[in-house]
Amino acid sequence: MMGGAMNEDARIARWVKAWPPGPAVLCGPGDDCALVAPPPRGAVGVLKTDAVLEGVHFTRRDPPRWVGRKALARAVSDFAAMGAVPSCALVACLLPGDAASGRWMDAAMRGMAAAGRRWGIGLAGGETTRGPRIGLTVMLHGWVERGRALRRGGARAGDVLMVTGRLGGSIRGRHLRFEPRLAEGRWLGGQRGVRAMMDLSDGLGRDLPRLAAASGLSFHLDPARLPRDAGCTVEQAVNDGEDYELLIAAAPSAAEALRAAWPFRTRLTGIGRLLPPSARAETGGVTLVGYDHFS
Amino acid sequence: MMGGAMNEDARIARWVKAWPPGPAVLCGPGDDCALVAPPPRGAVGVLKTDAVLEGVHFTRRDPPRWVGRKALARAVSDFAAMGAVPSCALVACLLPGDAASGRWMDAAMRGMAAAGRRWGIGLAGGETTRGPRIGLTVMLHGWVERGRALRRGGARAGDVLMVTGRLGGSIRGRHLRFEPRLAEGRWLGGQRGVRAMMDLSDGLGRDLPRLAAASGLSFHLDPARLPRDAGCTVEQAVNDGEDYELLIAAAPSAAEALRAAWPFRTRLTGIGRLLPPSARAETGGVTLVGYDHFS
Repeated sequence: MMGGAMNEDARIARWVKAWPPGPAVLCGPGDDCALVAPPPRGAVGVLKTDAVLEGVHFTRRDPPRWVGRKALARAVSDFAAMGAVPSCALVACLLPGDAASGRWMDAAMRGMAAAGRRWGIGLAGGETTRGPRIGLTVMLHGWVERGRALRRGGARAGDVLMVTGRLGGSIRGRHLRFEPRLAEGRWLGGQRGVRAMMDLSDGLGRDLPRLAAASGLSFHLDPARLPRDAGCTVEQAVNDGEDYELLIAAAPSAAEALRAAWPFRTRLTGIGRLLPPSARAETGGVTLVGYDHFS
Repeated sequence: MMGGAMNEDARIARWVKAWPPGPAVLCGPGDDCALVAPPPRGAVGVLKTDAVLEGVHFTRRDPPRWVGRKALARAVSDFAAMGAVPSCALVACLLPGDAASGRWMDAAMRGMAAAGRRWGIGLAGGETTRGPRIGLTVMLHGWVERGRALRRGGARAGDVLMVTGRLGGSIRGRHLRFEPRLAEGRWLGGQRGVRAMMDLSDGLGRDLPRLAAASGLSFHLDPARLPRDAGCTVEQAVNDGEDYELLIAAAPSAAEALRAAWPFRTRLTGIGRLLPPSARAETGGVTLVGYDHFS
């Protein structure tokens, strides 16, 4: 019907068909806005936006289905880090006009749709813009019970620091194929004594100082206890980044009970403690790239 | 503190300072996700994403404050078209690394922040990505009473078509400086007999067939009645696009009462009618660019 936009309309129709809106979406793609179910009684809304761009976060040589999955998984990992439940997504696509780009994006959207269906996330809407490179911006919407959200700033001096999984070496493939710790984050949000949480996207060396700073604290990191991926040095585990594991601060009195009750196959490892703000950060001699002790 | 990201952190801190989160944002920029107040009792959530990209939607010669305002106003216009209330925004920025781009984006964010404050929209979060051109993707969140949202597909044969404002010639400046019809759309959503609505972003010639198709109908357009901007031909009023006015379908029995009760200075003009699906679309000889009668 829209002559010039025929291919684009047909493309969007394929994406919409592959990714159903799900129960949280009351009015999905095709209208001026999306209408979505309000959070359950007693819960608040959760929003996150995240973008991946060709040449910055991926290249055309990366498998498009995994790149599409990753574009969604990054935002899902942020939901996991707050103990929140994602329910629907909007996707803004940047797309060069050539046929090869279109096929690449079709495959990326198939990968994103498959991951969305698996994680209980429906497609609420989106839009496409002609651009010089392929880009995918995801907006994720969901909910968390009021008072259950785990923020970065809730830790106290003496809290035990823990991480899920193993760190380092994600460039060998895990940066594309990682599993967001959605179930683990949701469980942690419901436990007593868990005070702060964030996901490790830029590496422990950058993200641990952020959690400590948000809580107004310093920290002690024990490099010998770091759960490293096979073949990784301590420096790689700290500084490689793109782990998408959870960093947790728990009350000392709760840490042992948490480990005992932990119902997942994912590892949960104590790696250090939070210190009073006046204490100098201790890293056991490991350099945290990008972190300046003196500023 | 984060050496390499110092300039970027300082830049984001300036943006956040210029645009307060407002009452709808419970946890704003700086954590893994934003936490937002749920819709009022009886309302549902509303979401929209929209992107503007350098070289496609604007150039560096356009005043950055107005480009920033427009990036937000386009999504606000979609909220207006559903009779919805926007409450907060997330902004994903694509930003080349040079200083001139940074200054340009600072000004664009000041323009967006000023418009957001005026329209009751707080900043909930966002992110920046290095990219080859400047881009701004806005994600807007808000609410509308359940059952009050005006969709495109609600019109019936015989309904009267109306538009707000004047059409055509937006390239002379209105495409940047337009006023989203937020109050008008909100009012229309509360009136009896208003059955369908959308905003005119691609021009009446493309958007009217979309509203008719969403409602499963054909249409009659009376070109002589079109409210044209000064100096515009009928063809320009129909095909220029970027009007960001509202297109409304109202029950014939309600149209006169609507016009009588209309409380705004903005024009409200009858421009045609919706016809049964079997009827051939009538445009009084005007060509609707991009619309093919025979498909």
